[in-house]
Amino acid sequence: MTREWAEQEAAADPLAAFAKDFLIPAGTLALNGNSLGPPAVGVPVALDDAVRRQWGEHLIRGWWDDGWWDAPERVGDRIGRLIGAEPGQVVVGESTSVQLFNGLTAAARLVPRRRVLVADAGNFPTDRYLAASVARLLGLRLVETPMDALPAVLDRYAGEVGAVLCGAVDFRTGELWDVAGLTAAIRRAGGVAVWDLSHAAGAIPLRVDHDAVDLAVGCGYKYLSGGPGAPAFLYAARRHHGDLDLAVTGWHGHADPFAMTDAFVPAAGIARARTGTPHLLSLLALEAALEPLEEAGVAAVRDKSVRLAEYLFALLADLDGVEVVTPRAPDRRGNHVTLRLPDAVAVAEALLRRGVVVDERPPDLLRICLNGLYVSWTDVYDAVAHLWEVLR
Amino acid sequence: MTREWAEQEAAADPLAAFAKDFLIPAGTLALNGNSLGPPAVGVPVALDDAVRRQWGEHLIRGWWDDGWWDAPERVGDRIGRLIGAEPGQVVVGESTSVQLFNGLTAAARLVPRRRVLVADAGNFPTDRYLAASVARLLGLRLVETPMDALPAVLDRYAGEVGAVLCGAVDFRTGELWDVAGLTAAIRRAGGVAVWDLSHAAGAIPLRVDHDAVDLAVGCGYKYLSGGPGAPAFLYAARRHHGDLDLAVTGWHGHADPFAMTDAFVPAAGIARARTGTPHLLSLLALEAALEPLEEAGVAAVRDKSVRLAEYLFALLADLDGVEVVTPRAPDRRGNHVTLRLPDAVAVAEALLRRGVVVDERPPDLLRICLNGLYVSWTDVYDAVAHLWEVLR
Repeated sequence: MTREWAEQEAAADPLAAFAKDFLIPAGTLALNGNSLGPPAVGVPVALDDAVRRQWGEHLIRGWWDDGWWDAPERVGDRIGRLIGAEPGQVVVGESTSVQLFNGLTAAARLVPRRRVLVADAGNFPTDRYLAASVARLLGLRLVETPMDALPAVLDRYAGEVGAVLCGAVDFRTGELWDVAGLTAAIRRAGGVAVWDLSHAAGAIPLRVDHDAVDLAVGCGYKYLSGGPGAPAFLYAARRHHGDLDLAVTGWHGHADPFAMTDAFVPAAGIARARTGTPHLLSLLALEAALEPLEEAGVAAVRDKSVRLAEYLFALLADLDGVEVVTPRAPDRRGNHVTLRLPDAVAVAEALLRRGVVVDERPPDLLRICLNGLYVSWTDVYDAVAHLWEVLR
Repeated sequence: MTREWAEQEAAADPLAAFAKDFLIPAGTLALNGNSLGPPAVGVPVALDDAVRRQWGEHLIRGWWDDGWWDAPERVGDRIGRLIGAEPGQVVVGESTSVQLFNGLTAAARLVPRRRVLVADAGNFPTDRYLAASVARLLGLRLVETPMDALPAVLDRYAGEVGAVLCGAVDFRTGELWDVAGLTAAIRRAGGVAVWDLSHAAGAIPLRVDHDAVDLAVGCGYKYLSGGPGAPAFLYAARRHHGDLDLAVTGWHGHADPFAMTDAFVPAAGIARARTGTPHLLSLLALEAALEPLEEAGVAAVRDKSVRLAEYLFALLADLDGVEVVTPRAPDRRGNHVTLRLPDAVAVAEALLRRGVVVDERPPDLLRICLNGLYVSWTDVYDAVAHLWEVLR
């Protein structure tokens, strides 16, 4: 519990060296990787190379000579490995909103006679807005439900349930849902499971193939540290590729893009989920950002993150007036810890002034993310010491 | 006609200094700015600052301290000035495909009783694929027409015409259509004009406000030189903002994004056309790329580009077997010149090996883009000399 203990743990930490792979200012505790991960040191190097050498020297030939054309699927495969997907099932590009829109539309079209679109009522707002938009466009009935009532809703609408959009981790409370079990329940109801993995990818060992997830999306800027607005990914299980019927059909997803034919003929495989020309600079930044996480391994990072959170829970036990909202069991929480306390906004701002970067969800939630890839035991100790001083 | 004459013109060129603002390898003639503009020297500097200082030092605070949140509209206003739009009518983000999808859906929804969606049959493939997708989603009848038959089609479907999607410049032939006149014809037919300005923005002085264009989109990587896959823009005339009903509704377009409310309430003004979190690194690269063009001014660049093309036409007159497909009158062409010649693909490849970067549209079209911002009179002379040698 003491800082000396934290220093000993930090000295014995096999992942300690990875903190040097990130640009984090001295004196800053970067504890909101659930919102925006810090830049990996390889990112500015990769961008400079992309602009000066690839684009500047090769101009248009970069699409072939520098592998730009293949980047959405190449980076997709790398993210695929982090979420338990075999190669050829993930593309990267566009924003999470667009991937959600496209994935959810395609999911509903896989089961066109199913007229109920079920959506997680606790999901991030964009997910809910897009579920409403897709339901309206396709003439479906939207049924929103809290995640803990999802099995009951699946029973109630059995025979009607089509696409089901769920967030794997509650963005407010950090609660982790049972991806495998709920996907199986959705399948039994005849539905198609679409998971938003934004708060899970790179944080938690996922097994989308093993769990028979149908489609999934996730953002690139949280645990993948791809930078502000990093491109998002779309996973579609291989068994669905032949029937994947996307609403946003760009020429990059065409079977023969450079033939420039009159009608859209979707590419075989996940390439059909490519849309317009991908934002290469942001995409190459994301690719460079993946390296430390790949080297450390999601399982090892998660294991350390779990232990850091347990240390946080122990330290917080001494603080009055702070309620831990996040479930404490590791299999029931994601990688951020949410505290409920009065004046969460003012506390977050006071912490920020001390260099402790956390974030708040008004009115009373404070979120702390302990990403084992670059957060240390001493960081946890120091953060709680700051919190103690702010609250006092 | 001689190289000496070209050298004299180059020496007297008031825009000559702008070539130094771009990273173009010595010995390379960058003549495909209609496809991918070269990097401005400010771009790698801006990206390094964005990653190391803004993201690396400010982390999540970059959204406020570094103006990231406002970037889609700030860069939108800068592009707006280049296309004749008063501030507050342009947002930047996503790919051209997504902006097209969203803009076209919103255009059709402005006139919901109009059941015919008219689309330019000579438009870039993505535009055509998306017109078909939007027509299918909204249950509209898609009518494709060559641009020269558009007035007749508007007459034939008067009373039914809703959204009308047109490309301002034919991507193959370089033909420039009459944006003002056709927009007026669309309006008289009760339709809503959606222009794809990808081959016009930054190349030709446009007056979207003056011409009463309804909506427009365009890519960032051609004449705006924003880099591979640079974010695209969406213009919507202010008179439509209150009724703009978008399909891809991300939380950035919400009236009160951080309230994270249950239902989507669109922001006032063009902000409602914001979607998900924008790809900031690509967006900041695009912003930095605009500076030389803004300083030179689109009108001055266009004037020089027109004269460069006239010089090209004069030089080509000596070459047998090369047909100029592009109309020669400046008010009837965009900024690339298309040649028809046998073996266009092989010729383009041979030119590329000589450092003359042009592109081809199989089977027999070769495109040459003379962007006055960084192309010189001697470049034109040298390119034709190379072409002469290749053809011989």
